[in-house]
Amino acid sequence: MAYFDNAATSYPKPKAVYLAMDEFYRKSGDIGRGNNMTPSAKKIIADTRKNLQTLLQCSAKQVIFVPTATIALNIIIQGIIKNGAKNIYISPFEHNAVTRTLHYFEISGAVKIFELKVTQDLNFDLQRIKYQFEKVAPDFVIVNHASNVIGLIAPVEKIFELAKKYNAVTLVDMAQTAGLVKLNVGLETIDFAVFAGHKTLLGPTGVSGFVMKTEINLPPLIFGGTGYDSANLEMPAELPERYEAGTLNVAGIAGLNAAVNWILNQTSEKIYAEEIERRNKLLKTLQKYEFLKIVGNFENRGYVGIVSCLFDSISSDSAGKIFADKGISIRSGLHCAPLAHKFLKTFPAGALRFSVNCLTSDEDFLELEDALDAISKEI
Amino acid sequence: MAYFDNAATSYPKPKAVYLAMDEFYRKSGDIGRGNNMTPSAKKIIADTRKNLQTLLQCSAKQVIFVPTATIALNIIIQGIIKNGAKNIYISPFEHNAVTRTLHYFEISGAVKIFELKVTQDLNFDLQRIKYQFEKVAPDFVIVNHASNVIGLIAPVEKIFELAKKYNAVTLVDMAQTAGLVKLNVGLETIDFAVFAGHKTLLGPTGVSGFVMKTEINLPPLIFGGTGYDSANLEMPAELPERYEAGTLNVAGIAGLNAAVNWILNQTSEKIYAEEIERRNKLLKTLQKYEFLKIVGNFENRGYVGIVSCLFDSISSDSAGKIFADKGISIRSGLHCAPLAHKFLKTFPAGALRFSVNCLTSDEDFLELEDALDAISKEI
Repeated sequence: MAYFDNAATSYPKPKAVYLAMDEFYRKSGDIGRGNNMTPSAKKIIADTRKNLQTLLQCSAKQVIFVPTATIALNIIIQGIIKNGAKNIYISPFEHNAVTRTLHYFEISGAVKIFELKVTQDLNFDLQRIKYQFEKVAPDFVIVNHASNVIGLIAPVEKIFELAKKYNAVTLVDMAQTAGLVKLNVGLETIDFAVFAGHKTLLGPTGVSGFVMKTEINLPPLIFGGTGYDSANLEMPAELPERYEAGTLNVAGIAGLNAAVNWILNQTSEKIYAEEIERRNKLLKTLQKYEFLKIVGNFENRGYVGIVSCLFDSISSDSAGKIFADKGISIRSGLHCAPLAHKFLKTFPAGALRFSVNCLTSDEDFLELEDALDAISKEI
Repeated sequence: MAYFDNAATSYPKPKAVYLAMDEFYRKSGDIGRGNNMTPSAKKIIADTRKNLQTLLQCSAKQVIFVPTATIALNIIIQGIIKNGAKNIYISPFEHNAVTRTLHYFEISGAVKIFELKVTQDLNFDLQRIKYQFEKVAPDFVIVNHASNVIGLIAPVEKIFELAKKYNAVTLVDMAQTAGLVKLNVGLETIDFAVFAGHKTLLGPTGVSGFVMKTEINLPPLIFGGTGYDSANLEMPAELPERYEAGTLNVAGIAGLNAAVNWILNQTSEKIYAEEIERRNKLLKTLQKYEFLKIVGNFENRGYVGIVSCLFDSISSDSAGKIFADKGISIRSGLHCAPLAHKFLKTFPAGALRFSVNCLTSDEDFLELEDALDAISKEI
């Protein structure tokens, strides 16, 4: 099997991740709750928060662990809307975790959704965005740091700088970039940043989270036990406990910590350079075959290691099956991002997505070429 | 270290659980999404649902995976309240995952909370409960199958039979009983049953869920990608996807499946008998020491392997530290169940909770006795 689906979940993980999880599971029943436990779970959880703060350059902000980036986005978006946000701007590349959540409030009339202007050659049009904000002041701006369909990196800092002139709440979805693409999450213009543990952070599934400014008053979405302050009928005001009801996935956090340490040792710069090298190799490989047409790739734009393409005269789902039969793991369809495909004019059929990272091997590429050669003879 | 905190998380797990997770992680990047993946993740997920249906005797009901029992309870409780439930009955033993969620709606005036009558010697008073329902008809009845503080098993079937005369929605929290205490979850009187993967089901942290009747219309709480039907602006109507937005913890599910298979092989009856044997041994051990006073233990009641006690003239938190220093892992305080402690008159100080299961070893008990001997000399 050749693995080109790192945008869904990165594979393989650094070996240290497997070791850390297995060791934690076998050696400890500790889940970091209560007052009288051994310090191991508490220490691992605290270390992981600190390492994420280092990696994301946000030592003064709080790291909150929740099981998935989807839950993180729901907590933030539903909370900010409960706080009264009405006019919400999103990029055209948002994931269904953002758009379905917003849609629920949009149909009730609680909010209005606006799409940030992006040119057809994939430049975020800052002049027009400035004008959009002048016409309808933003209460809340949500931007996908990199599209999970085409890997395009958004100029988050610039957009949020414009948004902050209106005191809008800002949220960057870093599911495809945390630990990979440098972004100073400590910036005053960034209120919330969501990360997925199992994608670019190279950790296991089941642990993700978000970074937030400590002074923001966000109502909780999930209520439950926090292992302390139990007599309080409400969720405690303290961070991170306010948003961490229920048992944490401690073994998952142990795995994530090993992954973050691995990234800190390698450096994000090196990992990103290696991913881009493989992205270029992927582009070159795909471009050799006439039946594939690459979507949304322009010179001089910032990308992560995601490339989508159309398969000549075959639906993306059927094409996906052809690749699966050859042992190539890719992802066909809409990638939970119908808005992005509408923007790219690949809706509703979707596209074929190939995604690489620094651990994609030469063998993966050799298998891919073999498969593409075989497919080109069959069609 | 001697481990007496199985009510927080069971430890150790059956070895097959560690093996299944490690193997899944190392061999597969597959997370069960998209159309063109290898069948392994999809198969593991489907198998686990089926095995849970077998274990819980509910083949006609749907198994939904969510990361924690807390999230499961929030999805169900918030959804049923959105559907219009006003008069909500709970047992006096509910966890903060239930009571904090309800409190949020209670203070807004949306719901009224009533406590099911239980006698001071721990009998659920079915006559008085019947009378309670006659006075104020229940819309929604929530019962903890076994208390996480004293292990008392509630007569769920009988309470729900009374509740169904009023067409109330019924929810049983099986965090401390799933796979351990026989309950026919397939019963027509049970609408929802919540399970925690990492407690009595002997699986890893990060994967839990609930069982529901397929015909119930429950609005989702978490919105996001489902890997199919992506063009739909709303969450799909189909189960289980409607409540499973975001990436599933597939390696966790692989571990849970190994655990459920282990339980099915051992049988719940045998596991429960072994747990009760150890509970009796625990009671005998604790009763030897005059400085410990056991709470909420009566003859001829049904229990799981949880025993709480007070430490003569020392606060439960300080006592908890004494045990921790001797390498005995227990849990002191309110156990995220202040209501139960109020009922037991151990509020706000809480108690010391010792919890065993079928894997609690003779060595654990020997270490506990050594520690108790040492403590009795020191005080």
